[in-house]
Amino acid sequence: MNTKIFRNISYGVYIVSTMDGDRPTGCTANSVMQVTSSPATIAVSINHDNFTNECIKKMNKFAISILTETSDPSIIGTFGFRSGKDTNKFDRVSYEMKENLPVIKDSCGYIICDVIDKMETETHTVFLGKVIDCDVLDDSGQVMTYAYYHKVIKGKSPKNAPTYLPDEGKKQESGKTKYVCQVCGYVYEGETLPQDFKCPICGKGAEYFKKM
Amino acid sequence: MNTKIFRNISYGVYIVSTMDGDRPTGCTANSVMQVTSSPATIAVSINHDNFTNECIKKMNKFAISILTETSDPSIIGTFGFRSGKDTNKFDRVSYEMKENLPVIKDSCGYIICDVIDKMETETHTVFLGKVIDCDVLDDSGQVMTYAYYHKVIKGKSPKNAPTYLPDEGKKQESGKTKYVCQVCGYVYEGETLPQDFKCPICGKGAEYFKKM
Repeated sequence: MNTKIFRNISYGVYIVSTMDGDRPTGCTANSVMQVTSSPATIAVSINHDNFTNECIKKMNKFAISILTETSDPSIIGTFGFRSGKDTNKFDRVSYEMKENLPVIKDSCGYIICDVIDKMETETHTVFLGKVIDCDVLDDSGQVMTYAYYHKVIKGKSPKNAPTYLPDEGKKQESGKTKYVCQVCGYVYEGETLPQDFKCPICGKGAEYFKKM
Repeated sequence: MNTKIFRNISYGVYIVSTMDGDRPTGCTANSVMQVTSSPATIAVSINHDNFTNECIKKMNKFAISILTETSDPSIIGTFGFRSGKDTNKFDRVSYEMKENLPVIKDSCGYIICDVIDKMETETHTVFLGKVIDCDVLDDSGQVMTYAYYHKVIKGKSPKNAPTYLPDEGKKQESGKTKYVCQVCGYVYEGETLPQDFKCPICGKGAEYFKKM
């Protein structure tokens, strides 16, 4: 078993959102796929430990916002490396309500789904949603792929992502020092870490970085 | 509802294969995603009308081969636009057997799964597979994304793909004539179609093309 091959499955980068009562919440996801075209249905895999999982189960609805290469990468950090249980993630981003669910404005568009089925696994729930609304918000940019997130933004996967690999970020380029963000796992490479450096993923300052 | 947004969901291009008794068979798919990392599970959506669907249900096993930008695009046509019921698709490609399932050699690697759950929809089955073997065959190339297939190879989606959109290929560039392959939907654009032209997707000759 060489699980490195999993890195060759292609994904986008999405914010999956729902409501916790009156409060919008959500998380970053990459395992999203269309299942049928007519009627349109979408499947998404969310970890049991993500607060969004239990909120979707209560609401029976979720929204997907599709990020692009020009979307602010701190959105990924806000939604991917913090818990919606104790953070109002949507306070940090511009959003609008569609079918009573929050969607990210800084995206190329959104899809709103009613949950019509689900499949449980040991760690994740696969929600099957029937699309009840969807729209393009901005089709000028390139969608962000998971490969782009890893290669260009140098982002990492949180531990509860379906695609998490335990040996992420261990490779070291010769001649450079690696500084790892203790909040989101982002790796900065360089001779020194500038004191005013802010993590492009989660927004934390240089004091949150640890030399590898 | 502006379903054009579905085009912004990112996928790869895969051959999902299994056995029909002693005979290897399979189909092209794009809706493939990892669901959990430990134990590793993968979900794939296959149309009920695909012969591969009923074969997976009998075998309770499937393999995924991950295509790259350098994989021969005719593989996509062979597996996407013909039925495995009356064609030995694997006669046309180089493959090897892994865990008693056929995997495509001209790919970056493969994943073999035991079916552990499934979810039925009106038109597709979502198979959930537990990974029992996987390996990298060639990591020198770029994986083929669905966007690359559409934009660079100018391939289309078969009618039973989860991502099929009815208005595909209707847009016309000014000054050019479009010739559409009646087998796979590939569109050639130019002033005339060369007599010796072969469809890069399904391999059919110029006689199968119709002027739009």
